[in-house]
Order: sequence, then C-alpha cells, then structure tokens
Amino acid sequence: MAGRGIFHGVGVGPGDPQLLTLKACEIIKAADVLAYPVNGSGTSRAREIASAVIPEDADELPIHVPMKVERDPARAAYDAAAGLISDHLVAGRNVAYLCLGDPLFFGSFMYLAARLEDVHEIEVVPGVTSLSACAACAHVPLGGRSDVLSIVPATLDEAALKSALQGADAVAIIKVGRHFKKVRDVLRAAGLAERALILESASGDNERITALEDVSEDDAPYFSTILVRRGELT
Amino acid sequence: MAGRGIFHGVGVGPGDPQLLTLKACEIIKAADVLAYPVNGSGTSRAREIASAVIPEDADELPIHVPMKVERDPARAAYDAAAGLISDHLVAGRNVAYLCLGDPLFFGSFMYLAARLEDVHEIEVVPGVTSLSACAACAHVPLGGRSDVLSIVPATLDEAALKSALQGADAVAIIKVGRHFKKVRDVLRAAGLAERALILESASGDNERITALEDVSEDDAPYFSTILVRRGELT
Repeated sequence: MAGRGIFHGVGVGPGDPQLLTLKACEIIKAADVLAYPVNGSGTSRAREIASAVIPEDADELPIHVPMKVERDPARAAYDAAAGLISDHLVAGRNVAYLCLGDPLFFGSFMYLAARLEDVHEIEVVPGVTSLSACAACAHVPLGGRSDVLSIVPATLDEAALKSALQGADAVAIIKVGRHFKKVRDVLRAAGLAERALILESASGDNERITALEDVSEDDAPYFSTILVRRGELT
Repeated sequence: MAGRGIFHGVGVGPGDPQLLTLKACEIIKAADVLAYPVNGSGTSRAREIASAVIPEDADELPIHVPMKVERDPARAAYDAAAGLISDHLVAGRNVAYLCLGDPLFFGSFMYLAARLEDVHEIEVVPGVTSLSACAACAHVPLGGRSDVLSIVPATLDEAALKSALQGADAVAIIKVGRHFKKVRDVLRAAGLAERALILESASGDNERITALEDVSEDDAPYFSTILVRRGELT
C-alpha cells in the first residue's frame, strides 16, 4: 500500500463544536480530502459541527447516505461512495470522513470501512457519543459498579424491545424518531415510563430534556434519545 | 447559590492526550481547583492524561477513591471527598474533577455528584469512552442499524453474565481484570469465545489487541475490555 492515502474515520462528537477532540482537529486540518455524509436536503450535521476547523480551500466530498430501511439501494450507495473514496486513496490522498458522535457507534462509517479495509489502510479517531452528551445534559449515570447498560435502537419491534429491556439496569433507546409511541408503550408495560427522560439535541443549541410522560405523541422530538434507569445508584 | 463555585466533571478520554476535547482543555486551564482520583499507590491515570494542559501553579486535590467491593468504606471515602470539594465550592472556587473516559460511564464522578448536586451547581463535560477507543483500535463496530449493544461489567456472577449476553448483537465486557477465566468460560459456553477480542490500554502507549482464545489465563491483561459481535454487520 506504499504511496497510498489513509482513510480516517473521524468522530466530531455530538453537536457542540467544543466537544471535538484535539486529534480530530488535527486530522481534519491535515486531510487532503474531507468526506462527510449528507442527508436528502443536502445538509451535513457532521460538517456543520466541524466547520470552524475546516480549511477554506479544503477539497470536500459530500456523500449521500441513504436513511432508508430497504437494504439494496443502501448497498449500492455505499458501494458508489467507497469507489469515490478509493480513487482518492489510490492517488495517494488522505481522506478524512467526518462522523457525528463516534465513528463505530451506530454511524455510516463502518459500512464504508467494510468496503475499503481489505485494500486500504484505515485509522479511526474515536469521538464523544451522543449518548455521553445525553447523560451529561441530564446528569444521569449511564452505568456504575455492576450495572448492565443496554443500548437499544427504537427501530426494533415491540417484542425485541421488551426483551432488550430485561436484565439491563440502565437503558438508552436511540433513534427514537417516529417510533416514539411504540417505545413509550413498551416502557409503560415494563413499568419504566415514569422514570424515563427524552433528550433532544444534547450538547447542541436546541438541547432539551423532558420527562417521557410529559411529551405528547404529536410533539415527540425526532432526533432524540430516551434514557431510563431501573433503580438508584448503589 | 450566588457566589458559589461550579463542580465540573471533566472527561479526559481513554488514554491518548490528543483525545481530550477542546472543552475539557478549556475547563481544566480555567479551574480554580483540579481534583482527580488517585489509586492506592498514589498515581492518577486521569491526571497523567491531562498533564500537558494542567497549569504549573494549579491548586490540586487528589482524591483517594476506594476500589474495594465492600460498600461502607467506599461510602465514607466519598462522603469525605465530597466534603473537601464542597468547602472549595462554598468559598466560590470552581472545581474540575478529572475523569478517565467519560464522567458518567462507569466512573467515580457520579458518586461525588450524587453527594453534591442538591446544594451545588454541577456541569458535566462528556468524554471519549475507553469503549470507543477499543472499537477504534480493533476496527470493530460497536453497533449498527438495529443492533442491541450491551455493556456488561465482568464483576457479575456467571448466571448474570450469561443472561446479559442473551439478546445482544454486540457485547462489551468491561473491568475484566481478575474475572478473566469466569468471563471466558461464559463466552465459551455461549459459543462466542472464538469471535471475542481482548483489548488492553486502547489509545494508550501500550495498546494491545489479542484474540481471546490466544490469551493464557496467567497472562490475561488486568485493565482490559472484551469485545464480541454475534454476527456480521448487515
């Protein structure tokens, strides 16, 4: 792989630009190409967070990452993106891919890395997760001493959600979005809804914490995480 | 609380000083008092990680945090430490408490915060966890799409460990230390040992990754984390 570029997955943290690490700043400033995921409307949360450290003359590579559940279009999109990144790496250019939160914690980086790792050198700069930002915002411990902490995507069906709650002392339900009602119903059935908090944009400008039972179904925040602890810290 | 200091829990990340956040650096430099946990031999990993940004004339408050399982001596030690911190806060001095990794992810900060939060203002600066550093080092995704990720302390007994593995797509077993054999036995019984990696000092100078089955019981690293995924990424 002599002469080839390195593919860096760079965690930019949960939202507050001050939660970038020193290493993330350094890699972003030095990269030959800055890649980042963009949503359907063309904006990139990861790029926004890092914007203060992105050089004015940076060579940028926005990557449209599909949010759809259907797998085949997503695969084709990742294949195409990996091809574009690979071209830069083969030409000897280092590519930094900006990741919201941490690159290997429920993001898109791992799907690109899986397509590139057999041929290219990969380095990962871990970042502060949105989960740590939620805990910091709410002053809720994620885990202490012998606690089991489960991190559960709200996309699971009711039975899988119910099963994932069992045996955990603390639970973080991520990607709540349009799954709010289903998740609340499962938490109510488990007797946990009254203890649950829902957090929006933790560490960002619109940070908001609400008791789950104070949120109406129509007003449930889309980008949100639910935190619940089964009991007190011991 | 007018005129009183703020108690800051500051995550300093997993080991590499470059994984401090910009915000952690800022709070550490500006704090009136820097507190941090020290172990039985008087050294503080959190202080070592942050040492490059600690002002030479910093007012330092080392806190002996008991590692013992017995609860009563630990409670007394936390009560005493909270008293020392409270004295500074009442006198109007901001205290930053340095935390390895993230303050609310299996650390000592939450036990101090619980003793101070009714009377004092508390702010938490989230940090990069050792778990994210392990994933970055091993290039192992912690979770993707609809994965359930369980974080399980090795201190649990066999039955609780076994139960915590069920239903999780990815498992991180933390605080492995002297529990190595028990954890390996449980992973073997669950058919997961062959897929498991054990990581030592992720992001630090002595970073090491080994397949679990390549580690002999006598040579198991003390400060280590085991990562295991049940299946492939989809």
